[in-house]
Amino acid sequence: MSRFLRPSLNWLLVFLPVAFALRYVPGWRHETALFFASGLAIVPLAGWMGSATEQLSHRLGQGIGGLLNASFGNAAELIIALMALHAGLIDVVKASITGSIIGNLLLVLGASVFAGGLRHKSQQFNKTAVRASCTALILAASALIIPSVFHHTADRHPGGWTPAAEQNLSLAIACVLLATYVALLIFSLGTHRQLYTGHTGAAPENATADGEAPWTIRRSVIVLIIATSAVAWVSEFLVGAVEAARHSLGVTETFVGIIIVALVGNAAEHSTAVTMALKNKMDLALGIAIGSSLQIALFVAPVLVFCSYFFLHPLNLEFTLPEIAAVVIAAFAATQISGDGESNWLEGVQLLALYAIFGLLFFFLPAAT
Amino acid sequence: MSRFLRPSLNWLLVFLPVAFALRYVPGWRHETALFFASGLAIVPLAGWMGSATEQLSHRLGQGIGGLLNASFGNAAELIIALMALHAGLIDVVKASITGSIIGNLLLVLGASVFAGGLRHKSQQFNKTAVRASCTALILAASALIIPSVFHHTADRHPGGWTPAAEQNLSLAIACVLLATYVALLIFSLGTHRQLYTGHTGAAPENATADGEAPWTIRRSVIVLIIATSAVAWVSEFLVGAVEAARHSLGVTETFVGIIIVALVGNAAEHSTAVTMALKNKMDLALGIAIGSSLQIALFVAPVLVFCSYFFLHPLNLEFTLPEIAAVVIAAFAATQISGDGESNWLEGVQLLALYAIFGLLFFFLPAAT
Amino acid sequence: MSRFLRPSLNWLLVFLPVAFALRYVPGWRHETALFFASGLAIVPLAGWMGSATEQLSHRLGQGIGGLLNASFGNAAELIIALMALHAGLIDVVKASITGSIIGNLLLVLGASVFAGGLRHKSQQFNKTAVRASCTALILAASALIIPSVFHHTADRHPGGWTPAAEQNLSLAIACVLLATYVALLIFSLGTHRQLYTGHTGAAPENATADGEAPWTIRRSVIVLIIATSAVAWVSEFLVGAVEAARHSLGVTETFVGIIIVALVGNAAEHSTAVTMALKNKMDLALGIAIGSSLQIALFVAPVLVFCSYFFLHPLNLEFTLPEIAAVVIAAFAATQISGDGESNWLEGVQLLALYAIFGLLFFFLPAAT
Repeated sequence: MSRFLRPSLNWLLVFLPVAFALRYVPGWRHETALFFASGLAIVPLAGWMGSATEQLSHRLGQGIGGLLNASFGNAAELIIALMALHAGLIDVVKASITGSIIGNLLLVLGASVFAGGLRHKSQQFNKTAVRASCTALILAASALIIPSVFHHTADRHPGGWTPAAEQNLSLAIACVLLATYVALLIFSLGTHRQLYTGHTGAAPENATADGEAPWTIRRSVIVLIIATSAVAWVSEFLVGAVEAARHSLGVTETFVGIIIVALVGNAAEHSTAVTMALKNKMDLALGIAIGSSLQIALFVAPVLVFCSYFFLHPLNLEFTLPEIAAVVIAAFAATQISGDGESNWLEGVQLLALYAIFGLLFFFLPAAT
Repeated sequence: MSRFLRPSLNWLLVFLPVAFALRYVPGWRHETALFFASGLAIVPLAGWMGSATEQLSHRLGQGIGGLLNASFGNAAELIIALMALHAGLIDVVKASITGSIIGNLLLVLGASVFAGGLRHKSQQFNKTAVRASCTALILAASALIIPSVFHHTADRHPGGWTPAAEQNLSLAIACVLLATYVALLIFSLGTHRQLYTGHTGAAPENATADGEAPWTIRRSVIVLIIATSAVAWVSEFLVGAVEAARHSLGVTETFVGIIIVALVGNAAEHSTAVTMALKNKMDLALGIAIGSSLQIALFVAPVLVFCSYFFLHPLNLEFTLPEIAAVVIAAFAATQISGDGESNWLEGVQLLALYAIFGLLFFFLPAAT
Repeated sequence: MSRFLRPSLNWLLVFLPVAFALRYVPGWRHETALFFASGLAIVPLAGWMGSATEQLSHRLGQGIGGLLNASFGNAAELIIALMALHAGLIDVVKASITGSIIGNLLLVLGASVFAGGLRHKSQQFNKTAVRASCTALILAASALIIPSVFHHTADRHPGGWTPAAEQNLSLAIACVLLATYVALLIFSLGTHRQLYTGHTGAAPENATADGEAPWTIRRSVIVLIIATSAVAWVSEFLVGAVEAARHSLGVTETFVGIIIVALVGNAAEHSTAVTMALKNKMDLALGIAIGSSLQIALFVAPVLVFCSYFFLHPLNLEFTLPEIAAVVIAAFAATQISGDGESNWLEGVQLLALYAIFGLLFFFLPAAT
């Protein structure tokens, strides 16, 4: 039965040759089609990267394995964002950070809670573990507000303001966020790991593997290398086609980053989390959704700031007011929903309604000039 | 004893002939007096509308009855707001929406918790039901922020901004809010109605009826028709006198909407909620206060947006910064107070202190130019 | 063992003669050195003021004693702020208010939770008492937002705005805050004092006294008078040297107030709270940290507003955006951390990370022009 419950996304691999054809066959080049084909092709590849990482983690034991999972769990998003950073699409990169956070907290968590709630009247989970994650979420959301508060305030004192101070502040905050992530890993993999029985905080170890025989280390490594290389290659198609695609669709860079790129990068988590919720394994579903958004905020975002110094486009953590509103409200809503240790379908609808509202906001919002 | 506990507001009906006299007797016309007389006359009429709706709901059974209650529970506010919308008093309409929300969450809830807490050392209530309502409150407050975030952000990109996009965003958000309200009704009247034992989420069915013989359907319908017609008639006096009254009182349109109109529309709920709290029926008291503010945010506000298209003044959901601060803080304070399933008098004082602070803010705030 | 656990700060009294020498010995005057010497000398003096107040409270019984404790518990901060107000350093005064609040909620609470958590895997405390304090915190943080909301909104309607209205609003809010503080005292010392078993809400009665013989009333009064006079005298050195010191250090008035002055005024509480946490007396540790920040917001801030009318520099409660962000986030983080009645070391790290982020923000922020 479990095979029918878990919708495989492997059929989307058909878009991989399509993307290559659209890119390399002379005369077939069509940017908008390439954008969608490469986006869809990344979905199953990101899923394979995740499965291989989990299998490898499982073999390496809880300590090193957990660390591996925590670092590579969102590697597909990281690769896409690095490609976009390299191409100078700063707004797309920033929007993909906030889009991944709200996508996980509102769309993935909302769909999981809703789908699970349709099948089960009330679903329970361990609220102590979720509480620690939600506190980290609130910390992360607060930290991502600060550079904008700085910019807004310093902007009104033109004499004193320097972009250098803004960049240094972002860099310092990135260091604090990464240090907090390390502390969270020590807590969840070390001193208090018994709170996270059956799964690690960052990503559940047997989430996609259940019902399958475990992979060998050799197989895991080979799959990981192939899937990672393919994601990196196809990400370049995706990023290269962003500008043409968004013009033909009539949407802004922010909308592409916050909705489309975030959807592509999180589709695998999405599918797994919903499956777990349907099976009434809410600890796993929440672990995926909340853990993944934490990984983006506390690990991917700081790493992107550090990496940006190797490119010609230093990245700061100053987000726009709509992005800040989205992250803060999403963190707060996820905290409120999960605070009592049980969920029902209405809570899923409420999270999805918030996602719809933010989707509408970013759809109607004009481009920054 | 219960008759002494529940202060009847029927003696305020004496202001009904006074209002008619001030309006129609030649030479007696005095706008400020008319404003107060019609405001005071609406209080008992709104109470009769509420009682008739509840009685009818009771007769029609939980499904249809709950729906009726949820739709007409705040009909008096809706009628006043429609009259004001028709008269083009857009600021009064918007302020009456936010004023009703904070009036219910801070003044009505605060007075109930305080009064109940003076008589009972600690009062308990079902925190699961309240939690679902508070999550809906937070969703509603978040949604009401979005159009202002849009306006503030789009304003800084003059090339791209169009009032049409702003209006469409408000319309789309109104649809999402109404859909959420429908989901909340399905939850509280359908799939999870056992959480709301003894009362519906939106309005308690036997709140004002206890100790009285039930009414017949015929009597309920007649009272409902008469009270509704009278409210509609007197609302026109109230709205017509707003401009003159606010000039002679030296207050702004926003203050009139947020404090005075909201007080008039909610006086009946106020009286009932305090009575229930004194009787230690905190589930009913919280159901009235929080349910009523939810009804305003998720039902009345969207309906006003839809209806505004039939008038010449389309209404958007863009509120001012003080209004947003008031709604967000009120929603958050109500969530914090009710989150542990018990209340004491200090929590009532804290809610009332917040109401006082917002009253002062709107009193001192100059009019928008 | 307890003597080793509780680090005495008395050795810092060596800075008292140093400060006098730097101030009065001809040729020795050095403003930056004087600033630090007087700051360090205040730390143990403030500690003695606190001990004498507690001893006196203990002798006078719970009613009057609790009131005394609640009024003089932060007397050192009040004296420093009054000196700064007298010298016209309005920005330093305001920053010392917000700095004391976030210092207590993030640094003192964070260090206590972290230190306690290193020794004890999980620490429990009475969540009902903490919840009442956190609700008061949220009320206080909301109230401190309002004058800025007023200023920002009124600023956009130049015709209607008057500084007088702003000042009156701050004065009215100060009255509401003080009334809320009186209500909190009636609750914690009167009607619900059994919730606070073993300590009062505002300051623990035997926190610094344990292990010592109780003092006589005579000794308490003499120590209180001497320590208070010394604090008042040395505060004048500190305030007089602020301008020169901040120039030589290259930091803003806000940074001096929010970080340095707040550290000096709270060092004694800090040391006591950490000691209590190490002894697993979390109710006392939280009582000190949260109670002290409440005392600043609900008692010290209003008293400073009232006192400012006796000087030539009326103080309003309008804070800058970074200060507001800091207070709101600190109040929210403390509420989230303490809401479940237990703490662990990770929560301490998270609070300290937030303090570090705000320290960075205020360090990089240019001076207001």
